[in-house]
Amino acid sequence: MATVNPPRGMRDFLPAEKARRERVLAVIRARYRAHGFDEIETPVMEEYSRLHAGIGGDNEKLAFNVLARGLDADAIRAAADDPAALTDLGLRYDLTVPLARFYASHRGELPGVFRAIQIAPVWRAERPQKGRYRQFVQCDIDIIGDATARAESELIAATLDTLDALGLEGGVVRVNDRRVLDWMLSSFGFAEDERPRVLITIDKLDKIGADGVVRELADRGAATEAVEAFGAFLRRPSSADVPFGEQQIRGALPDGVPDEIVAHLTGIGDAVAAARPGESGIPVVFDPFLVRGMGYYTGTIFELAHPSVGYSLGGGGRYDGMIGRFLGQDVPAVGFSIGFERIVDLLEGEADAVDRAIVLVHDRDVTVAELVAVKADLVAGGARVRLEQRPKNLKPLLERAVADGYTGFAFVAAGSAPADIEVKPLA
Amino acid sequence: MATVNPPRGMRDFLPAEKARRERVLAVIRARYRAHGFDEIETPVMEEYSRLHAGIGGDNEKLAFNVLARGLDADAIRAAADDPAALTDLGLRYDLTVPLARFYASHRGELPGVFRAIQIAPVWRAERPQKGRYRQFVQCDIDIIGDATARAESELIAATLDTLDALGLEGGVVRVNDRRVLDWMLSSFGFAEDERPRVLITIDKLDKIGADGVVRELADRGAATEAVEAFGAFLRRPSSADVPFGEQQIRGALPDGVPDEIVAHLTGIGDAVAAARPGESGIPVVFDPFLVRGMGYYTGTIFELAHPSVGYSLGGGGRYDGMIGRFLGQDVPAVGFSIGFERIVDLLEGEADAVDRAIVLVHDRDVTVAELVAVKADLVAGGARVRLEQRPKNLKPLLERAVADGYTGFAFVAAGSAPADIEVKPLA
Repeated sequence: MATVNPPRGMRDFLPAEKARRERVLAVIRARYRAHGFDEIETPVMEEYSRLHAGIGGDNEKLAFNVLARGLDADAIRAAADDPAALTDLGLRYDLTVPLARFYASHRGELPGVFRAIQIAPVWRAERPQKGRYRQFVQCDIDIIGDATARAESELIAATLDTLDALGLEGGVVRVNDRRVLDWMLSSFGFAEDERPRVLITIDKLDKIGADGVVRELADRGAATEAVEAFGAFLRRPSSADVPFGEQQIRGALPDGVPDEIVAHLTGIGDAVAAARPGESGIPVVFDPFLVRGMGYYTGTIFELAHPSVGYSLGGGGRYDGMIGRFLGQDVPAVGFSIGFERIVDLLEGEADAVDRAIVLVHDRDVTVAELVAVKADLVAGGARVRLEQRPKNLKPLLERAVADGYTGFAFVAAGSAPADIEVKPLA
Repeated sequence: MATVNPPRGMRDFLPAEKARRERVLAVIRARYRAHGFDEIETPVMEEYSRLHAGIGGDNEKLAFNVLARGLDADAIRAAADDPAALTDLGLRYDLTVPLARFYASHRGELPGVFRAIQIAPVWRAERPQKGRYRQFVQCDIDIIGDATARAESELIAATLDTLDALGLEGGVVRVNDRRVLDWMLSSFGFAEDERPRVLITIDKLDKIGADGVVRELADRGAATEAVEAFGAFLRRPSSADVPFGEQQIRGALPDGVPDEIVAHLTGIGDAVAAARPGESGIPVVFDPFLVRGMGYYTGTIFELAHPSVGYSLGGGGRYDGMIGRFLGQDVPAVGFSIGFERIVDLLEGEADAVDRAIVLVHDRDVTVAELVAVKADLVAGGARVRLEQRPKNLKPLLERAVADGYTGFAFVAAGSAPADIEVKPLA
């Protein structure tokens, strides 16, 4: 006999939690829309070959695959050594691969610069742990068709504005660029073909420190001179997040950084400063060691930090090469995803704010017709109305109503007409 | 190479269509909430054994099943004659089975009478055809824990109110009761064990007519006398939908209908009339031949009709036995599902109504910082803002903006500050 629990790593949402999630989503959706983004939707399933084309990185291995229909015994036996033959569709593990597929399919119907909102669940068969689920909601905004820093600044401004609207003022976006990393590693003498592996190690800097990075690079057989030069740079004082001024950026990078790289970065800083005129400081910082895991990033990368938590609340970057893999023609693209599940956990639970929500407590002998007539009258007047039969002890009922956001209550006795009802405020 | 289309029978939604769907859902959600229902959410996947326990009827065969993880070659070979061993989870094909599982899991945290809203996608591997999709949204309301006609009348009132709010006034709910059908078939002499098959035939009455029903029943070997008696009754004049008065109900049924059945039906009619006091006629009719397909219905069944279309816009009924299969204890339950996809197709596409939505058309030489400063100023003032670089021909750009719901536009030239911007109305 199956249990009555949801499947492993997946969650049921009861009314209060569901209402809270929907309120947060409504704020996010409204702010993104204000910034000129338009919501789209794709099916939860994509073709298996699409999901396993090497774009999704480690997430590909975590995909839930759907059993192909109509397999006979022979086909199943033949698939013993090639289980991929058992499946033709999978559940999406992110919203970026479906967006690229969507754009390739519908380009002719979309504006030249397309600003997309996607707010939808994704699925990953990860080992469940606190705060990590097998079904979770992602909130992505992406700009397709704009290669300039205007796109980055629109994404960052929309994201910080959304965080503000959620009551999480003080967000900061850490920014780097894959081309900065590439130039930096090249300047230390890492060969082009070893740089991707070096990036994987640098991505652990927060966890294992400069010494750990040097040790892992040496263990992996990276060129000794390059490792030593990089190690010395890593161990310099004050190489952490820096403000977005030209001097600070130059100071955070090895000597001789090309002017166009500096100009690109200060351009993003200037644009974000312009988009947030009230800000006392610029809410972006440059982090030359920010890597971001996905292999598809080609330029700017960013991560959303907030003083109240030690972990990132979102991130994104440029992936100018990906759409080309679907369309056969390169199109610039950049996206920012905020971590909805983390944000909803951060926000305190407040009761649902409804202007007029009334619990009607009725005696057992009130007829159904009397009861629904009273309810209909209040609903028509703009109230939200819940019917409850009067229990022996009224207190728990009214307490639950308050917790559910109800603001008033009234008794209905047999023979009551709508005009007889007197609504009292709930504590 | 995979195509760039969504999987077979599934749809992408572009911005205008997505916005339209979300607006319709917002109306539905708001009306349901006003009537005292609370939204919940369950994962899209349920355990395979749960989805294939015989409750889902024909839909069980249409389930998309998820490939179990970690199957080795031996396990796959062993599954050749038992493909169910390849899967442990499936995508839900309705919202009723998950609701029953949810209620069994969370009963202690829910009110004694629980009024649930579920607005969510379901999946069925049906042969795609016009208006029938493999992923589609269902909008269900259910009342668990109330065995009285109060529950039916709350569902019907909420549904008709929602239809009104969507601009689809004039909806009518056709009502019957499985116990009425059972009594009626018994009165004609059908044996208890042949009645389920007789119901399947009656369900085709609209399509094959009285003669077709009689022929099919005879072909299936139903008792001749019963078929003849029933055929004579079916061919009587004026046995179609009737108003909910006692005389009309008696007239629509064979002679000798027990008083308690009539009282039960008139009770629902009275309650709905009380819930819709402004109505000129009662928006419910009795249809003694309404069957509804699902095997789990135990009492009242209903279907939503609208004068503008020949097909049903929703339906539901009582399923007092189902929760018991999960909980081990019977709990009364009744639900009403409106056909969201059909309704959204019915409603005319209107542009998204946004109070202040402005397209900023900028020259190529405007700096990113100037541009985002202007945008930030308008967004902060409450507008929705889209940036567009000025094309050679402005007309298509402005036409698209109007279609997307934008109401104003302004030009941004190099050196512009927010105060320089003059917003003009869009045609």
